[in-house]
Order: sequence, then structure tokens, then C-alpha cells
Amino acid sequence: MPDHLPGPLGAPLAEPLFDCVTLIGIGLIGSSLAHVARRKGLARKIIAFDADAGVSARVRELAIADEVAGSLKSAVRDADLVILCVPVGAMGAIAQEIAPFLRAGAIISDVGSVKCSVLAAVAPHLPPDAGFASLFLHRWCILTPPEMTDPKAVAKLSAFWTGAGANVEVMQPAHHDLVLAITSHVPHLIAYNIVGTAAHLEEVTQSEVIKFSASGFRDFTRIAASDPTMWRDIFLNNKEAVIEMLGRFTEDLIALQRMIRHGDGQGLFDLFTRTRAIRRAIIEQGQDTAAPDFGRRREES
Amino acid sequence: MPDHLPGPLGAPLAEPLFDCVTLIGIGLIGSSLAHVARRKGLARKIIAFDADAGVSARVRELAIADEVAGSLKSAVRDADLVILCVPVGAMGAIAQEIAPFLRAGAIISDVGSVKCSVLAAVAPHLPPDAGFASLFLHRWCILTPPEMTDPKAVAKLSAFWTGAGANVEVMQPAHHDLVLAITSHVPHLIAYNIVGTAAHLEEVTQSEVIKFSASGFRDFTRIAASDPTMWRDIFLNNKEAVIEMLGRFTEDLIALQRMIRHGDGQGLFDLFTRTRAIRRAIIEQGQDTAAPDFGRRREES
Repeated sequence: MPDHLPGPLGAPLAEPLFDCVTLIGIGLIGSSLAHVARRKGLARKIIAFDADAGVSARVRELAIADEVAGSLKSAVRDADLVILCVPVGAMGAIAQEIAPFLRAGAIISDVGSVKCSVLAAVAPHLPPDAGFASLFLHRWCILTPPEMTDPKAVAKLSAFWTGAGANVEVMQPAHHDLVLAITSHVPHLIAYNIVGTAAHLEEVTQSEVIKFSASGFRDFTRIAASDPTMWRDIFLNNKEAVIEMLGRFTEDLIALQRMIRHGDGQGLFDLFTRTRAIRRAIIEQGQDTAAPDFGRRREES
Repeated sequence: MPDHLPGPLGAPLAEPLFDCVTLIGIGLIGSSLAHVARRKGLARKIIAFDADAGVSARVRELAIADEVAGSLKSAVRDADLVILCVPVGAMGAIAQEIAPFLRAGAIISDVGSVKCSVLAAVAPHLPPDAGFASLFLHRWCILTPPEMTDPKAVAKLSAFWTGAGANVEVMQPAHHDLVLAITSHVPHLIAYNIVGTAAHLEEVTQSEVIKFSASGFRDFTRIAASDPTMWRDIFLNNKEAVIEMLGRFTEDLIALQRMIRHGDGQGLFDLFTRTRAIRRAIIEQGQDTAAPDFGRRREES
């Protein structure tokens, strides 16, 4: 779709929200933010920085930013909004390094806590080529400002994400961590775990697991192929909430195992029926589609 | 694609394998078998039976079988191959009912134990309209003949499934149950379980779970929307293998929880790296595609 047509993202803003937005870490999220910031006119100037020289060169070729900075200092010193788009484990060191060079009043945010729900599994380390302007369209963005944050800064950042097409919700950081633990972190952990369990059985060979990987397991292997560095960092940094939610999960699983052992068909049926309601609600809210997936297209018939 | 072209299924057989194939239960699998049996000339005659009068009427309209039988007796009395395509829980009663009317030498099989790996999650109770001839193409079919089975019958049934496009493997029934427990049944159970856990938290509301359902959880809700009757029956009928594999899973999960509690980043990273190898192997064997899924199409950009 040509850039002069509004398209699903709508028309550009009449007035940019920021003079200069700096994006640090140009993977899928960083490059998509660059695309949408330009497309929607969210900033007068977009500066990109990436520690990897190859990525920087590619960003220059793609021309998705107005400037590709050669150092963190030159990247942030003019910015009134800095967004860190690097893995959780790298955030601290970068924040420390840029701190002395930030302008007074600059807003610093990151996409480790601004969780666009759909992105966690596949986004990290994708190259800038992967970015596209509508990545955030209709997705939820959770802002978790610390208590002393200027409400005007929250409002401006919220407008930025709304301008990028996202739905914004503001949440206490601790509550955010619990919500993400159950909707994202624990599901990833159990996907990693079942694939690990399957790989180390004596009775069933690994090649049988691969050959006969069925719906369910196959989907779990996709999740369990997510970036190891990002997920290690997430579990180390959200330890309490993950352990709390894992405890609930295990408790419920043992109750389910007991139903199977005792042949409680009614109990199994009731649970399996209740879980369908959640699925329906997710589809109704447009977070997924109802289309069945047979692992193949019908048109092949 | 017109029927006279070979297409991905290849040309019809020179000589049908069976005189009369009877399919009992005409959902996705039954109707797809009817399509492929006709397309590939696997049988001289195809008889369909379904206990539901509405389904029977629809099968007549679709004309996917040569005959739609009005009773189990008339359905099976001429068949040299009968395939039960009904939920596991209904198999026993139907087998008992048809037993007196079977021809001597007729082969009786079912798709509860002939597990086409891709089908378990979504197939049951789909109407005959859903069937298509290439459903089984390149999919694994596991035959589990009891010990006293005539090897010629196994060879003939194997030829039938190969004719339908599937890859066939013969396995001991107990081993089949273990393989399916880890590649299909336990993954479904833990998907049902995490969705159940998420629905009953006090700290996180159900509407938050739905709104912020991320990749991982969202995939689990798809699996946890599978047919409750079919899955109740599977767990009640594969109790020992499921409980055995669940025990391994829980053991591993508790070790993983311990790593998180003790901040063992290296241990987490190592596991998360090993699980990627399994994913790669599944993609290499053509059981899934590598394309990332952001929950949206890139073309929307």
C-alpha cells in the first residue's frame, strides 16, 4: 500500500508528538516502531541505534530512520523520547550508559515492560527487515510507570502508542508481572518443559517424537523454539510471579491427574467444556481467528 | 482440481484393493476417507453410515459414497473393510453391534487407534462437508494390529492407507499408547490445565487473561477448545500411559521451577537451546512450517 494512502493505520497526525524519537535495538519491534512513527508522523525525527554494525548498515540501507547513530551518546542527546528495544537482560547496562547524556525531561521507555502481547515469542533478534508499520495495530500495550512518573509523560507515551495503532492500558508493575506470568511466561515454560521431557524418554525415541509430533505437541515446539536468551532473562527477572503461577498450575494439574487415575469422566468433561468459553472470548475480542488448522491448506485437495 | 487429473494424490490404482469399504461415522475423517477412496479407486464400492439422520441426509446430498446405509447391519454385511470413524467412547458399542453381521474375513479397523497425527485436535464432529481427499497426504498413520491378526490383513490395510496418501507405520498397541501420550495426550492435558488455571485466579481477572492473552497462551486456548467428549474418552482409555508421562513432565517442571528459584540462568539457557533442535527436526521432516506467526498477516502493513 503506498505511503500516501491512510490504510488501516489511519491518516498521519496533524502535529508530531515528539521532536526526536530514539530507538535503541533495531530488530522486529524497533524497525516496526520506526516504520509506524514515520508513517503516522509521530516524531519530527527518528534516530536509530544498534550495537551490531551489520544491523546499523542494514538500517541505513533500508532508510527507515532519519539518522543511524554511531554511539549511544549521539543517539540519545537530542531525544525527547528514547525507547529501548533490546532484550530484558541488556536493559540495565544500556540505561546506565545513556543516563548521563539524556536531555532534561526526556521520556525513557522500553518494550520489555511495554508488553505488546503478541510479540514476546517471536520478536527478539529478528532483523530490521522484518519490521512493518501495522505490527502494533489493535494490539495491547501495557504501560507500567513507576509511582513518581510525571502523568504528562505517561499521557504523551500513551498517545505515541495509540498513534502506532495499539490499545494502551496503564497498570501497576507488580500486577503487570502477574498478568504476564499467567498469559505468557508460564505457558512458555511448560512448552519448553514438555519438549524437554519428550526429548529424554527411554521408552519413546526422539525420532518417534519428531515423526509423530501431533497437534498440540507441534504447537508447543514452535513456542519452545523462542529465543533462549530472552526467555532466560524473563524467568530470572519475573521469578516471584512465575513461581506463584507455576504453583497454581501444578496444583491444578495434580487434581487433573487424580481425575484420570480415578476415572472421573464427568470432572474431565466439565473442565474441558469450561476452557472452551475462554477460547470463544479470545476469538470474540479479535485476538485470534477461529479457523481450524490441519497443518495443511484445504486448497491442496 | 478436476477429478481426472492425478494432482498431488497421484493416479488411481489400476485395481481396487477392496470390493466394498464401509465407513461408520461420517465427520471430517470419514468423509475424507470417502473422498480419497473414490479419487484413488481404493474400493469398488463405498458405503457410509452415520447414526445421525441429518448427517446421513447430507452425505446423500454430497454424494460422496455409493450408498448411505439405513442400519449398521445393512452397512457392514457386504464389506470386506469396515473403518470405524467414531469417538473412542463409541467404538465398543458399535463393534459389538456389527459383530454378528460381518462377512468372514472382513477387516475391521478404526481411526481411534489408526492415529493420523494431525487430526486428533480438530477432526471429531466436523460435518461431512469438511472432508477433502488430501487430508491424509504425507501424514503418519500408525497401525496397531493385535497379535493374532492375519499379516495379509495388515498388508492390505497398509496398502489402503498408503493409497490414501499416508505414511504407514506398524506398532505394538502399548508402544503406540506411550508415543501418543507424550506427543498428543499430555500436551492437550496441560493446555486444558493452564487455561483452567488462568480462569480461576483471584489476582488476575478473567477479562485481563482474555485481553492480554499472548502467544503461547493463545495457542493453548486453541488446543483447549478441542472436543470435550473425545478428550475425556482418550484420557479414560489411555490412563496408564498418560499418568506415566505426566509424572515425567511434572518431575521436569519442578526441576525447572527450582532453576528459576535459584537463579540458574545457565541451566535455563541450556534447556531452552536444546528444545530448539527438536523444532528444527520437525520442520525438516515437513511436519510443520518455519514461518513465524505474529497473529496477523504481513500484507496488512
